[in-house]
Amino acid sequence: MTVSLVGAGPGDPELITVRGLARVRACEVLVYDRLVARELVDEAPVNALRIPRDSLAQHEVNALLVRHGRGRRVVRLKGGDPFVFGRGGEEALALADAGVPFELVPGVSSLSAVPESVHIPVTHRGVASAVTAFAANDVESLDAAALARVPGTLVAFMGGARVAQLAQRLIENGKPAATPAAVVSRGTTDDEQVVVAPLGAIGDVAKGLPTPALVVIGEVVAVRAALALAAHAVA
Amino acid sequence: MTVSLVGAGPGDPELITVRGLARVRACEVLVYDRLVARELVDEAPVNALRIPRDSLAQHEVNALLVRHGRGRRVVRLKGGDPFVFGRGGEEALALADAGVPFELVPGVSSLSAVPESVHIPVTHRGVASAVTAFAANDVESLDAAALARVPGTLVAFMGGARVAQLAQRLIENGKPAATPAAVVSRGTTDDEQVVVAPLGAIGDVAKGLPTPALVVIGEVVAVRAALALAAHAVA
Repeated sequence: MTVSLVGAGPGDPELITVRGLARVRACEVLVYDRLVARELVDEAPVNALRIPRDSLAQHEVNALLVRHGRGRRVVRLKGGDPFVFGRGGEEALALADAGVPFELVPGVSSLSAVPESVHIPVTHRGVASAVTAFAANDVESLDAAALARVPGTLVAFMGGARVAQLAQRLIENGKPAATPAAVVSRGTTDDEQVVVAPLGAIGDVAKGLPTPALVVIGEVVAVRAALALAAHAVA
Repeated sequence: MTVSLVGAGPGDPELITVRGLARVRACEVLVYDRLVARELVDEAPVNALRIPRDSLAQHEVNALLVRHGRGRRVVRLKGGDPFVFGRGGEEALALADAGVPFELVPGVSSLSAVPESVHIPVTHRGVASAVTAFAANDVESLDAAALARVPGTLVAFMGGARVAQLAQRLIENGKPAATPAAVVSRGTTDDEQVVVAPLGAIGDVAKGLPTPALVVIGEVVAVRAALALAAHAVA
């Protein structure tokens, strides 16, 4: 049998891929992350074994996938894309080490889809020809000097709780405090919230926003104003 | 009526999102890129107007979307994600300026899905906690000094034809020539090819590979060897 490591996308259940949904609908065991939409968990067959990942350590998840993967069709459903800050690589390596066949089904990453949901293009011709995404759960250990200097857009994952510290470190390392910035909380879901401010003020403005949150820093944030207006006419 | 800017994903037609496919199946006008899978174009209703984008300049595409968007359900189907080197922002701005309502349906970007397809995780715990994607169609104008210094993985778009020049500029700016590198040609399609070599040799090794090609540079490329073995047992 096979383990499918499937990206569920950024939150909105209709943003899973066609293949990903097909795998969920055909699974015998579903191991899913807390942030995965309930609607997707409900797509698994009624008699499928559903295992929330919440209370398990990473090594326990790995062992679970190996054990069930030896006899059954397993889907490991992860938020976003399994290989973008998703620890899919660790799970895949555990399966490889155990000789359990697996496949990777990519997902829409929050990297671009969450900014897109609030009308921020992470790249935009003439504004940003590069985008750097990084894990900001440990702000102290970041190479802020390099990040402050890289051209284009910055996207910080897991930075929701530490926006002020992140902004401060980037500014100390030369990123202009006037750089446009945005924080998107629970992007693409019904609870989505966005705040926009210069980098020097974004920490205060974003205070108290629910996690998960994504931080977007760069001139592309300013493109939003022109885009959001017409798009909102749809609703 | 509304224009939907839809990401078709990296090549494999099953990697479009559920919403994206629903929009294609309900459209009256489909404007599509050359690199979009034929299977997806065929999903549009038989009586839908199909317009290949190939022979049109960007301003003509914009005008077309505005004109048809005023009276019909239009889908603009783009490779990858519309906002990751996809010029979706320009098309959205043209629609906004004209007061035509639009929506954005994100897609799986080649950024992570193409490396994933050859078992390279663009981020991997303990190996890379950041990834920088950049447009490399104009190698001479790149800020190679900053790119050589940014921590984590580099992913170059549209660099297929200029791998040697790109590698040379990064090495001249301090990126070690021994850094693992890969070039993936036509990733996620039936014609996918991948070559792996140290950065200093990747230009020679990748010579003659068909475009489009994506270049991946960083220690994560070395994770591939362990992953590819078990995964291939699936096929």
